[in-house]
Amino acid sequence: MPLEFEVLATDGKARRGRLTTPHGVIETPAFMPVGTLGAVKGLSVDDLEQAGSQIMLSNLYHLTLRPGIDVIESLGGIHGFTSWDRPILTDSGGYQVFSLAQRRKLDRQGVTFRSHVDGDKVRFTPETVVESQCRLGVDIAMMLDDCPPWPIDEKKAAQSLELTLHWAERARSAWPDDQAGGLFGIVQGSGFPELRRRAVDAMTPLDFQGYAIGGVSVGEGPELRRGVVEWIGHLLPEDRPRYLMGLGTPEDIQHGVSHGVDLFDCVMPARHARHGQLFTAEGVIKIKNARYKDDPTPLDAESTWPLAQRYSRAFLHHLFRTKEITAHVLATVVNVRFYLDFMRQLRERVESGTLTATGDLRAAPAPPSTALPET
Amino acid sequence: MPLEFEVLATDGKARRGRLTTPHGVIETPAFMPVGTLGAVKGLSVDDLEQAGSQIMLSNLYHLTLRPGIDVIESLGGIHGFTSWDRPILTDSGGYQVFSLAQRRKLDRQGVTFRSHVDGDKVRFTPETVVESQCRLGVDIAMMLDDCPPWPIDEKKAAQSLELTLHWAERARSAWPDDQAGGLFGIVQGSGFPELRRRAVDAMTPLDFQGYAIGGVSVGEGPELRRGVVEWIGHLLPEDRPRYLMGLGTPEDIQHGVSHGVDLFDCVMPARHARHGQLFTAEGVIKIKNARYKDDPTPLDAESTWPLAQRYSRAFLHHLFRTKEITAHVLATVVNVRFYLDFMRQLRERVESGTLTATGDLRAAPAPPSTALPET
Repeated sequence: MPLEFEVLATDGKARRGRLTTPHGVIETPAFMPVGTLGAVKGLSVDDLEQAGSQIMLSNLYHLTLRPGIDVIESLGGIHGFTSWDRPILTDSGGYQVFSLAQRRKLDRQGVTFRSHVDGDKVRFTPETVVESQCRLGVDIAMMLDDCPPWPIDEKKAAQSLELTLHWAERARSAWPDDQAGGLFGIVQGSGFPELRRRAVDAMTPLDFQGYAIGGVSVGEGPELRRGVVEWIGHLLPEDRPRYLMGLGTPEDIQHGVSHGVDLFDCVMPARHARHGQLFTAEGVIKIKNARYKDDPTPLDAESTWPLAQRYSRAFLHHLFRTKEITAHVLATVVNVRFYLDFMRQLRERVESGTLTATGDLRAAPAPPSTALPET
Repeated sequence: MPLEFEVLATDGKARRGRLTTPHGVIETPAFMPVGTLGAVKGLSVDDLEQAGSQIMLSNLYHLTLRPGIDVIESLGGIHGFTSWDRPILTDSGGYQVFSLAQRRKLDRQGVTFRSHVDGDKVRFTPETVVESQCRLGVDIAMMLDDCPPWPIDEKKAAQSLELTLHWAERARSAWPDDQAGGLFGIVQGSGFPELRRRAVDAMTPLDFQGYAIGGVSVGEGPELRRGVVEWIGHLLPEDRPRYLMGLGTPEDIQHGVSHGVDLFDCVMPARHARHGQLFTAEGVIKIKNARYKDDPTPLDAESTWPLAQRYSRAFLHHLFRTKEITAHVLATVVNVRFYLDFMRQLRERVESGTLTATGDLRAAPAPPSTALPET
């Protein structure tokens, strides 16, 4: 079955939608926890299910290097391999090729690079990336794109975009009509409004099953990052899910939702957790700070996770100070739950038409962080 | 309430017992997962409860250094601090003082040492160790003992034992009559049968609420280790729980049970897990071995943990190879579950009188490891 998407309600540009995939339904706006190598760091599939995650995001670049597509395919595809039986989206790995891989050589046909793990030579083309994701059996596949860092001059950005648009056509052609799931196009164009709009105009006729905004959070500041969403969020096809790649803070996400975005992913909840930063109803807590040494208050009294109410801040402080592995696990569950609960609030706001009326959830009784460090 | 212990059934020297503590009942023989700093490495209290753990073991040496007894007491004692509301035993830390602490100076009154964490000077005496454990509110407290490594000559071992016996008297006197829980004595005497028997004779009249066999697994081989249990296991007071400290493999535990021991602890299931060694019904599996790269079989088809049946060996192999933190968590749950399930089997065998009749569980359809590396 192909993807199905319906918009159930709107509030300004914000949409409350439902995306049906081969492995289940995703109520949108939705956050996709990142399991780069097939598992969210520190969590089991039970933890992720119990947290209410509707979908997991994984990464084709990393899975291609280890354990390899052949192995995953032989184990029943990515669902059999990971034991996660709800929807899975794989990023194509374009971003990782340009941020992690060594000695990469870009040409019009694709990109050749050396694995950052063992130096093995690997080649990605729009066609191989589609084929690999089909072999994995993912619910949502992402096209290969060229994702340049910021800053970049407009001429180079235009050249990069031209390549991505060329790859978009080839990826779309390579996607089999009878393949379960769907292929998303990625709109590039860096920090230039004209390029971004040109990208939308060129991508729309290709009829992808969803559209992503890529090339954000690549070195630009928050104003430009949000600017891109404001320029094109509402221009993307209305009847397709829209995905803002790699963002971000709860505020970034709420901003994206208010400009018509449906799907989000970010390593932030897991990465912050490993650094001892907890997302709570009171804002971001740096649990390693000495002030928490004997603080008996719960990790997050408003969390939907019973253990966030049962464990004290003093105990998690202690586990971080003593470098206990349990510290990372507990903090990750707290943060992933926070993001998923936050998305639930946003969905309710859009449904009730109160997202735009009442402004930021930050002003609500249980606000997300207002003092979040940049990643 | 003091501890209550009753022997429900016997099979040869083996006992099927029930130990009632302020925080609940422990069906014996029982294994106590080790949460040195208040949590089993990688697990939450939910994980440990769901695994069926009846009691957690923690360590006074480590908790004294971090976060300190004052902090734990202010948070409601060790149960409030850890959020583990079932029974807790703390080891006195005698072993850690002699294996981890720096610049230790032993005298007849106690031992002074430098913290291995920050170099702070700390002094333990039999009285302070009892007092600290009372302040923590543990269910089972252990006396301070002198735990010499092996090999040691008999004269030095006798001197060490004399000190431990002196400390035993003082610890027993220091234990308040109205304190909830109970204090266990520790029988030392190294690898010398005469010293061990002398220790039993001297300790028994002190009327501890339980008796531990200490000073094993300190460098001696398996024969001597088991020899100590055979010499004195059955000589310890019949109406008190018997605890074999720091052991061991499933075979060691079964051997201990068959010689009348009721309680066990060991870091082995958690430590082996971190090194990628899984205890399964098929024996110990070294999951990092290349042979598991594409092995679709479950981690342990006979585990009581549903995820051990859901996750493939190939996936856990992949998580270890890519150094994902989830690897440690999953392997730890597998191993702790294995130990707890193994104890359940042993209890059933003693109840049905088939422990001694049928020999090692190794010969049963679902045997524990037969090829276990020494720790």
